[in-house]
Amino acid sequence: MSASRVTDRSDIKVLDCTVRDGGLVNGHQFSDAFVRTVYRTCAAAGVDYMEVGYKNSDKILTSDKYGAWKFCKEDDVRRAIGEEPPDVKLSVMIDAGTIDWKNDIPPRDRSIFHTIRIAFYANQVTEAVEMIDDAHQKGYDVWANLMAASTVEEVEIDRTLDIIARTPASTIVVVDSYGSMYTEAVESLVKKYLRYGNDFGKEVGIHAHNNQQLAFANSVAAITHGANCVDASIGGLGRGAGNCPMELMLGFLRHPKFKLRPIYAALDELITPLRKELDWGPAPEYNITGQMNRHPRDAIEVRENPKLRDHYLKFYDRFVDEG
Amino acid sequence: MSASRVTDRSDIKVLDCTVRDGGLVNGHQFSDAFVRTVYRTCAAAGVDYMEVGYKNSDKILTSDKYGAWKFCKEDDVRRAIGEEPPDVKLSVMIDAGTIDWKNDIPPRDRSIFHTIRIAFYANQVTEAVEMIDDAHQKGYDVWANLMAASTVEEVEIDRTLDIIARTPASTIVVVDSYGSMYTEAVESLVKKYLRYGNDFGKEVGIHAHNNQQLAFANSVAAITHGANCVDASIGGLGRGAGNCPMELMLGFLRHPKFKLRPIYAALDELITPLRKELDWGPAPEYNITGQMNRHPRDAIEVRENPKLRDHYLKFYDRFVDEG
Repeated sequence: MSASRVTDRSDIKVLDCTVRDGGLVNGHQFSDAFVRTVYRTCAAAGVDYMEVGYKNSDKILTSDKYGAWKFCKEDDVRRAIGEEPPDVKLSVMIDAGTIDWKNDIPPRDRSIFHTIRIAFYANQVTEAVEMIDDAHQKGYDVWANLMAASTVEEVEIDRTLDIIARTPASTIVVVDSYGSMYTEAVESLVKKYLRYGNDFGKEVGIHAHNNQQLAFANSVAAITHGANCVDASIGGLGRGAGNCPMELMLGFLRHPKFKLRPIYAALDELITPLRKELDWGPAPEYNITGQMNRHPRDAIEVRENPKLRDHYLKFYDRFVDEG
Repeated sequence: MSASRVTDRSDIKVLDCTVRDGGLVNGHQFSDAFVRTVYRTCAAAGVDYMEVGYKNSDKILTSDKYGAWKFCKEDDVRRAIGEEPPDVKLSVMIDAGTIDWKNDIPPRDRSIFHTIRIAFYANQVTEAVEMIDDAHQKGYDVWANLMAASTVEEVEIDRTLDIIARTPASTIVVVDSYGSMYTEAVESLVKKYLRYGNDFGKEVGIHAHNNQQLAFANSVAAITHGANCVDASIGGLGRGAGNCPMELMLGFLRHPKFKLRPIYAALDELITPLRKELDWGPAPEYNITGQMNRHPRDAIEVRENPKLRDHYLKFYDRFVDEG
């Protein structure tokens, strides 16, 4: 009864976002050894992509406050991963509105990165199109991540997809930034993204958050309804409630190209120690912000404070009062 | 994008199994005050049923080893809940093969319980039918819980449902004992149970376990495909990986008869202290037993031992070796 109709979908690509989304939990302060172990784990497990972090300019952001993976300088990444062309495609994210991408992003043949993912809100679509064009002209595979889709009106999602579909982005990602979506919302969006993207040969991806313990279920639903690219992270490491756990996703996919054992090894080596330092996962505060379709920032703030976290009724009342 | 087509399903009934399934974590050693608080929480939250525990005979099982809710003597339940007819329908579970149910179960008019749930494996269906008949004749509403459906061959599920559909049970429950089912398996079973039950006016329920972080998602899927009765527990408290968290389920249902606030109050009062004493929830050991469609007993044993738990690779290798 547990077998699945997606078992034989050899076209599914898995992107590891442990270091990138996990960097939002610890200010991107992972050691080179941590990044290298994630990289080797991905290679051993058959994971297709590893996202290392963000491109930012240290002329704009101070690098004192953040670790290396907030900037992903080529030298830093090469030092951690190795100089050789990597076995796993490396990906980096750029937030719209954050850097001088025309000057700060080198051409693909001078970069260790294979893929650039452009993260943007619906109201930033014009800049996003310019960024996609620029990265594509430089030789990268480009993905378009429309963030916080749960807060965007249907008509605006349509308008945005109509624009993005005509860009050279290869992949459009359904992003549930707030972890507020139920499975039927994911299904509906995946079908919509495919409808806009199909004519232009786009693939559709899914990036889920675990606020309501739905990141894995929603990722499976997205795949079932035609998404071919799925984000996951080891131990679900990621901002707030975290992401779809890699150990669950690879267990589900059951394709022989994916190996589960290296993921359990990485859980022991990387995640168990990290749980003593960092807080992530679907705590009730995140259930509440997810249920209310709100940014997790208030829940993160509360959970970072040992005196405030795990007082759920107080947190709930605050949200209900604010309406 | 988060609204749901089930929002207006006023016929959905929620059964709280915090004390019953949670009793499998602590040998049913809850204080009267704990049970009373769960009861009052259910009443305040609009939860339809509360399951208190199991009926067992202290002639067969020693009562030294277990707390009161392994036996659910009428006097014990009345002392905890109160003598008045309860606002929330009380339910009790009987495992096939465990007691002299003909003599040990009083008639309904001498009992505080409204509902008896018969838990049985497919090979116990003959006794289950006798138990259902007996409990029905005594005046109870009777539910039939076919356990570990993920391990039963399709043809045997059909045969069992064909028999159970002809009994006076009001409700047949899809039970994912091992937390191994993906959403499409739940959908398929709910439809099958409805197909057998519909002609005889049965309702279908869902009892999910959270081994793969799918208890909530699978419960939502069951409801979406026609189940009307859903089990949930406060904080997901339940054996091993636990059950569908009540705070997520009521947040999803959004029907005005359900109130979330009392659940968050109970999380603070009951669950936060309990997390310091007991271990439950979807730890990687449970991911593994769920993925492999195995009873969680080995994972429970490992997680109960501080020296053995959180060594995931070792646990994984043991399971792969055993095949």
